[in-house]
Amino acid sequence: MDRLRVAVVGAGYWGPNLVRNFSASAACDLRWVCDLDEQRARRAVGAYSTVGVTTDVDKVLGDDEVDAVAIATPAGTHKALAIAALEAGKHVLVEKPLASSVAEGEAIVALAEERGLTVMCDHTYCYTPAVQRIRDLVATGTLGDLQYFDSVRINLGLVQKDIDVFWDLAPHDLSILDFILPPTLAPLAVAAHGADPIGAGHPCVGYLTLPLPGGAIAHVHVNWLSPTKIRTMVVAGSRRTLVWDDLNPSQRLSIFDRGVDLHVPQDTEAKREILVSYRSGEMVAPALHETEALQNSVSEFAAAVREHRPPLTDGHAGLRVLRMLEAAGRSLAEGGRLIPL
Amino acid sequence: MDRLRVAVVGAGYWGPNLVRNFSASAACDLRWVCDLDEQRARRAVGAYSTVGVTTDVDKVLGDDEVDAVAIATPAGTHKALAIAALEAGKHVLVEKPLASSVAEGEAIVALAEERGLTVMCDHTYCYTPAVQRIRDLVATGTLGDLQYFDSVRINLGLVQKDIDVFWDLAPHDLSILDFILPPTLAPLAVAAHGADPIGAGHPCVGYLTLPLPGGAIAHVHVNWLSPTKIRTMVVAGSRRTLVWDDLNPSQRLSIFDRGVDLHVPQDTEAKREILVSYRSGEMVAPALHETEALQNSVSEFAAAVREHRPPLTDGHAGLRVLRMLEAAGRSLAEGGRLIPL
Amino acid sequence: MDRLRVAVVGAGYWGPNLVRNFSASAACDLRWVCDLDEQRARRAVGAYSTVGVTTDVDKVLGDDEVDAVAIATPAGTHKALAIAALEAGKHVLVEKPLASSVAEGEAIVALAEERGLTVMCDHTYCYTPAVQRIRDLVATGTLGDLQYFDSVRINLGLVQKDIDVFWDLAPHDLSILDFILPPTLAPLAVAAHGADPIGAGHPCVGYLTLPLPGGAIAHVHVNWLSPTKIRTMVVAGSRRTLVWDDLNPSQRLSIFDRGVDLHVPQDTEAKREILVSYRSGEMVAPALHETEALQNSVSEFAAAVREHRPPLTDGHAGLRVLRMLEAAGRSLAEGGRLIPL
Amino acid sequence: MDRLRVAVVGAGYWGPNLVRNFSASAACDLRWVCDLDEQRARRAVGAYSTVGVTTDVDKVLGDDEVDAVAIATPAGTHKALAIAALEAGKHVLVEKPLASSVAEGEAIVALAEERGLTVMCDHTYCYTPAVQRIRDLVATGTLGDLQYFDSVRINLGLVQKDIDVFWDLAPHDLSILDFILPPTLAPLAVAAHGADPIGAGHPCVGYLTLPLPGGAIAHVHVNWLSPTKIRTMVVAGSRRTLVWDDLNPSQRLSIFDRGVDLHVPQDTEAKREILVSYRSGEMVAPALHETEALQNSVSEFAAAVREHRPPLTDGHAGLRVLRMLEAAGRSLAEGGRLIPL
Repeated sequence: MDRLRVAVVGAGYWGPNLVRNFSASAACDLRWVCDLDEQRARRAVGAYSTVGVTTDVDKVLGDDEVDAVAIATPAGTHKALAIAALEAGKHVLVEKPLASSVAEGEAIVALAEERGLTVMCDHTYCYTPAVQRIRDLVATGTLGDLQYFDSVRINLGLVQKDIDVFWDLAPHDLSILDFILPPTLAPLAVAAHGADPIGAGHPCVGYLTLPLPGGAIAHVHVNWLSPTKIRTMVVAGSRRTLVWDDLNPSQRLSIFDRGVDLHVPQDTEAKREILVSYRSGEMVAPALHETEALQNSVSEFAAAVREHRPPLTDGHAGLRVLRMLEAAGRSLAEGGRLIPL
Repeated sequence: MDRLRVAVVGAGYWGPNLVRNFSASAACDLRWVCDLDEQRARRAVGAYSTVGVTTDVDKVLGDDEVDAVAIATPAGTHKALAIAALEAGKHVLVEKPLASSVAEGEAIVALAEERGLTVMCDHTYCYTPAVQRIRDLVATGTLGDLQYFDSVRINLGLVQKDIDVFWDLAPHDLSILDFILPPTLAPLAVAAHGADPIGAGHPCVGYLTLPLPGGAIAHVHVNWLSPTKIRTMVVAGSRRTLVWDDLNPSQRLSIFDRGVDLHVPQDTEAKREILVSYRSGEMVAPALHETEALQNSVSEFAAAVREHRPPLTDGHAGLRVLRMLEAAGRSLAEGGRLIPL
Repeated sequence: MDRLRVAVVGAGYWGPNLVRNFSASAACDLRWVCDLDEQRARRAVGAYSTVGVTTDVDKVLGDDEVDAVAIATPAGTHKALAIAALEAGKHVLVEKPLASSVAEGEAIVALAEERGLTVMCDHTYCYTPAVQRIRDLVATGTLGDLQYFDSVRINLGLVQKDIDVFWDLAPHDLSILDFILPPTLAPLAVAAHGADPIGAGHPCVGYLTLPLPGGAIAHVHVNWLSPTKIRTMVVAGSRRTLVWDDLNPSQRLSIFDRGVDLHVPQDTEAKREILVSYRSGEMVAPALHETEALQNSVSEFAAAVREHRPPLTDGHAGLRVLRMLEAAGRSLAEGGRLIPL
Repeated sequence: MDRLRVAVVGAGYWGPNLVRNFSASAACDLRWVCDLDEQRARRAVGAYSTVGVTTDVDKVLGDDEVDAVAIATPAGTHKALAIAALEAGKHVLVEKPLASSVAEGEAIVALAEERGLTVMCDHTYCYTPAVQRIRDLVATGTLGDLQYFDSVRINLGLVQKDIDVFWDLAPHDLSILDFILPPTLAPLAVAAHGADPIGAGHPCVGYLTLPLPGGAIAHVHVNWLSPTKIRTMVVAGSRRTLVWDDLNPSQRLSIFDRGVDLHVPQDTEAKREILVSYRSGEMVAPALHETEALQNSVSEFAAAVREHRPPLTDGHAGLRVLRMLEAAGRSLAEGGRLIPL
């Protein structure tokens, strides 16, 4: 099959990673890198590259030799760029979050469906071997019934001017949550608490709580002000609990055969005498192959276009994440009230 | 001066620690260990001990050679025992939490003040070298303005039948918060979210959020269902941020000279151009002497009685913690609503 | 059966641990604690104890109500005390190392065998759940053929005046090595290198290398001058490799299914083309119960006496360790030459 | 000034890193990548590159537009390639080790000096911010008198067919040791012990001991069979001790103000009463900027050529490392005997 001919728009923080991975992909042919700053686009491809560099996005969209556009610009520009690309007949890969509001995201998804084009949201973490393993462990029942999900994503981060810490960091956690949970366990509501102790104008430290069906709970801590960097996620189940530490390359996943079992006696008389037992079994750290998530992500994008099928993280996944972010914003404005999803 | 003659009531989980520390204290003379289960009281003192063992608390309270009683029984019994001890003219050291409600706690404190007797709440962590150092670092301005406080206290814990995870574990975090914050920074409100995924009848996983004056925030994660044990507290300030890891004896405290500084230009025109700068300086792990907190705690109790002064963690500290716990319970009942303190 | 009536001689660094464990043992009855410094003996038993305290070892040895003596004095005094105790008809438990020379150790063992009394060397680590598990894993072939054994035991330690770092710390590593290896894999020789950069008069930093049968090797690093404390041992085999980190209570043992396999082709022509393959499988951290090693050790002593059988770490184990230490001393004197065992 | 026009010879394991760093260097102009396997050379530059690719080294050496050649081929070919490059008037950067024997290395260095050309040995670790800081800390006396140096470099590594684990891994440790020690503290001798438990034909596990002047000692553990990856180096001094953990990006260097001080009384009578005191002060982890060592290395190469000065790690540094490796080989052959340097 022919290779997917791709242009990358946006060569700021994430764009160079897309450039590098499209360059290395046998399934793709990188044609253009476009940025308002030509020097930045040039740096992204390197001094010895034959890939085209431009500041003119219309030149890219007007090029018949371009099949698809990867958008790595600020979220506020996603809608206009994606709509323009779709109207020019290009498939689109959009950096997370899909757009800066649910309404904008819906416009993108609707147009793509109308035109029969692929929209993929680059929820990169969903393409890590760790998250794919976690999804399997949940799906196969290895973890048992889900009990809680606790994610911490903190470090001394770039304080953004236009978006708060929830919109900057939580798309990662929420897209992973969306990816690993079966639809029947989708979050029921969101409560958000934030703080802006440095006067940035919006929260720099934030906490999300999401009740799940069946008594489980998800919680997310995002933080731009932490001197230490932590990327840890716990997915606890009735049979096993896993801890994912993304900063420990030698042991990213640890699966614990430990937990608490409750036995409520049938006998009504004895009901007060709940029996609690504790399992304190072994821990297993499975071997994961180390592949760069973004390489898997661009491969999935190329394959989805080729096979005319929705990618694993399609526009609807992007929309579900936007809905959680919007609800979090409303909760924040209402003093932490639980907002139903 | 004469040594403080002490009786320990309750030889369950915590009592034996009190027994050991009163035994080793040069300022105290341990007279009795009292428990409903005589064997348990005997085990607490050991086979070769001359300390008296009894199941009869009245025998203890009636002994004129007893100056003070340390109460290490379930929280629901604290009020009755403390009141009886105070009425018998004994000073009391009460295990945390001070009582099972604010009203009960107030009764204890009122009676003690009426009788001129000492009430101390054994907020043990406040007597660790680490927390005492943290308090100093806050008080001397070394950390600068407080930005956030994040505490995680999770492990595969004993699921309690009568109290939830907030009442079981959060007294530690809240008493530390109360201890290190100056009164002007006392929490303004509490929101609580919890989950009971195992059907225990009350939350086994819980999160507390407490807005502080000046835009700062405190957050606490308590959890009985975690396969890993974590005891970490971050106290972040505008000048420095410290991380306390109580399970790392070789480096409990790490003080980071890292942070985010925001410079809002005076010029109105330029206001949108907030300047953000990042400090990424060194980390210092101070040397702490390793002394058992409970040894410091029993010394403080003996000294406070001897010197007729309130102990560092007096009844009022216990009451402040109870108020936060009660408000958390109300928040929980009202879907996570922020409850003012 | 009757309880073993025990006296502890020596209440310095290790003696109080023996006192505590004998006190807590249902199989033993602690009668005496003897030390040249009466106050020190008193502190070891505590202020409220009924156990006898004396400075007169003859009083202890002359007491018919004493069945056994535990010797926790400096190594140079072990021989005289053990001989005296055996002559008084007492069983003996001797702190490691068994004596300060092979000749002295042989005298102790010979007399005990002549009198039909038990001699146990308190190689405490052999009674940890971790080392017992390691021994099982070696014995059952789970690790495959042993490849190397690497032990690191370093910290800012008490610089001893009379013995070097090898005699102070290496008995631990060597006794563990002796305990986990089958007799057919006993070390063939020892080379020792040391340094005394502070002018203590003997090595404060030391390295031991011990070739084992079949091409394997054991190596030990002991060090009094390290600012960090490390207690790690790797036992590598052709099938699995385990890492024991004694300072990580939540994961002391990690068993890796990783390794290198070499396939030498049968075909002579192809011999140069050795095929190397790598296994990179999962890691399992087994659940270990946490029991204090010394509690197991005193139980084993009592059981061995009662059952008239050699204890797990008998006098001969103590002698084998002494032979390695003596050979290390000779190697050190001869510039690191390999000394056959 | 004009940019240094460079060719990379060898596109196997390390060559692509050189290609990437020369490509990114403003001081260099990458002209050729040469490898016996053209596809491999092509992969090193990427599909979109304008850099020349060839299998013919003579074409590279005959190109007048090439000023310098970077050699990243197996050590056994270094001499012939470096000699050919020097004879063609090119400066050379040679991958570690400089050559496969001292004699070969001397031939390279001699020819370069005769022709007035630059020879640099790519001891990459010497260009890490961590090692440069360590060198400063030693040079400024911050650590005090050196006491010991302990390096561990172990992981499940590629078992080499032509060279043993010492020649594969120890050049890193020895080049760092050579770099941070002042000439007056150069190692006096080497003893080596190794094991080949898998039948590879040469040691796969190895230990080096190097006595240093003044009673200090250096020790190196290299190992291809370890399931865990460790890259730790301790540099201990009388005033401070540092630990470098290269796998901990958030805290690579830790400087401990801990140690042992010995006070030998002047009074002859009291000489036996050596006084030992212990410092247990704070630990400081300095902030290090994160720059890729190889970027610094290629910059140093370009600067040394431009400024007609020896690079930091010149041919003589490469020779000193070769002398230690050869002595280690002799020690190995003689049962671990100390071989003077």
